[in-house]
Amino acid sequence: MSETLKVGIVGYGNLGRGVEMAIKQNPDMQLEAIFTRRQPEQVNQGNGAKMLHVSEAEAYIGKLDVMILCGGSATDLPEQGPVFAKMFNTVDSFDTHAKIPEYFEKVDAAAKQGGYISVISTGWDPGLFSLNRMLAEAILPEGNEYTFWGKGVSQGHSDAIRRVPGVKNGVQYTIPSDEAVAKVRSGSNPTLTTREKHLRDCYVVAEEGADLKAIEQAIVSMPNYFSDYDTTVTFISEEELKANHSTMPHGGLVFRSGKTGTSSTQIIEFGLKLDSNPEFTASVLVAYARAAAKLAKQGQTGAKTVFDIPFGLLSPKSPEQLRKELL
Amino acid sequence: MSETLKVGIVGYGNLGRGVEMAIKQNPDMQLEAIFTRRQPEQVNQGNGAKMLHVSEAEAYIGKLDVMILCGGSATDLPEQGPVFAKMFNTVDSFDTHAKIPEYFEKVDAAAKQGGYISVISTGWDPGLFSLNRMLAEAILPEGNEYTFWGKGVSQGHSDAIRRVPGVKNGVQYTIPSDEAVAKVRSGSNPTLTTREKHLRDCYVVAEEGADLKAIEQAIVSMPNYFSDYDTTVTFISEEELKANHSTMPHGGLVFRSGKTGTSSTQIIEFGLKLDSNPEFTASVLVAYARAAAKLAKQGQTGAKTVFDIPFGLLSPKSPEQLRKELL
Repeated sequence: MSETLKVGIVGYGNLGRGVEMAIKQNPDMQLEAIFTRRQPEQVNQGNGAKMLHVSEAEAYIGKLDVMILCGGSATDLPEQGPVFAKMFNTVDSFDTHAKIPEYFEKVDAAAKQGGYISVISTGWDPGLFSLNRMLAEAILPEGNEYTFWGKGVSQGHSDAIRRVPGVKNGVQYTIPSDEAVAKVRSGSNPTLTTREKHLRDCYVVAEEGADLKAIEQAIVSMPNYFSDYDTTVTFISEEELKANHSTMPHGGLVFRSGKTGTSSTQIIEFGLKLDSNPEFTASVLVAYARAAAKLAKQGQTGAKTVFDIPFGLLSPKSPEQLRKELL
Repeated sequence: MSETLKVGIVGYGNLGRGVEMAIKQNPDMQLEAIFTRRQPEQVNQGNGAKMLHVSEAEAYIGKLDVMILCGGSATDLPEQGPVFAKMFNTVDSFDTHAKIPEYFEKVDAAAKQGGYISVISTGWDPGLFSLNRMLAEAILPEGNEYTFWGKGVSQGHSDAIRRVPGVKNGVQYTIPSDEAVAKVRSGSNPTLTTREKHLRDCYVVAEEGADLKAIEQAIVSMPNYFSDYDTTVTFISEEELKANHSTMPHGGLVFRSGKTGTSSTQIIEFGLKLDSNPEFTASVLVAYARAAAKLAKQGQTGAKTVFDIPFGLLSPKSPEQLRKELL
């Protein structure tokens, strides 16, 4: 590990751009190159980073402390994760919860073969939310866990809206129910149905002449996505959608409401309120990139998750500084 | 490490009793003995645990996986911490922030000499609050941190009230200002004075015939403790104090309000709402006792803090289970 951490980025979508910006906030890190599957000259290079085709990554073996993988979980990471784990210390935000064990095994084998560290599934869920669920369960073994998401844009639900006939464009916000959150905060340990926990708020641009009633009905009755929720549909113009609904806010709350002793209610709450979901995820990736480099320096290899990494490794500060300033 | 963790407790005040109860919630642990400085036969033994004089602890060397030190930070732990670290893996809640570096060094030397692990300064502040301050700073290097304490009883402030002439008894609650908390949650990154952050709410039992106006004035104008705060004084009867103000609730909030990219506000919030401060601290100690035993099994020695310990070690679940169930 060099004194300044040399970092590479694979993938230059919203997350990759977020990582590029986050690295600039961390003076102990330096962005060496961004690797893209597109033709590098066709990618916006306004921020001055070196933009290379992903096929050139191999030439950087031994020249980077960490490679941050910014591809998606559906198709990019299952392929790229194991490939890059053989060549670099890596960090990613693989977030298909059900497939994490399988992904872990593959990346672990590849990273051990290459002699590198790979931190998988960082970000906030999986990531910070997972850490809080785990910590709270370990401290309060007798209790209930509640996770609320939002207010934030759900890509899956927005895509579902856009597939409805007559819909030109649309955005869906997942919103935690204030009433449900208040019940959990009160310590009453409520049993909450799907409908009681979250609302779904849809902003829809219809094709000209489309049957608005039919669109609304198709959305609110859609199984899996909307039929189990209280869903609001508001029709707006394309201009209004672009003006007011083009940012990517998100967030959420993780609670554990437990009992200790004979009857004490103890509530642990963790919350995020994010103006930009991809920028925040990027900032988490960058902190874990620092940890990956430190673990590699200790001689460790293989795949790791947030559960395996002491928080101290995320900080540029020394253990002495951390004890003095932050304990 | 045996299959069931054998645990000892030193000190049988509120915290020690909390640890005793918390161990019962964790089927992988077994309480072997409680060590007290009092005459064991004079200590309430209603819960069935073996009660021994602290001088008998040495006979348990090699027979315990962890000793949980439940003494106070003012005089007990500075003496007991290094002594027990030479004989057992230990966990404590040393909470004198300014003296943590010095305490760490002493315990570290003792633990390394004995070949044991000592986890110091666990609990919630220091402890969970420290972890959240550190994590949030690492993720959002450009931002501000805000900690609010309460609503909860402050022993130091309650003691200060009881030293005022004419006061028979009293309890002081530290209360975060709703307005200040709302400002922080809004992302406005406010600059908050001491007076704006917390209120101090005092319940006072006066001696018969005492000058109530003089007592109130002495409290609200007391330097260091009350003069920088908006303080409320309510006179009540001894019966009312015992009936309504004898529990030990506490809690608080840790925020980081940061910026990423060009202008996105990102807020991380961690909060505790505790019916019983000592029982919750005890539950944290017990989770870190499990981690201490696992670290010892790995062959590690010396003093550790919450910053050095991966969350996964706090759980009775295996890494595979954690990845599958909680990531």
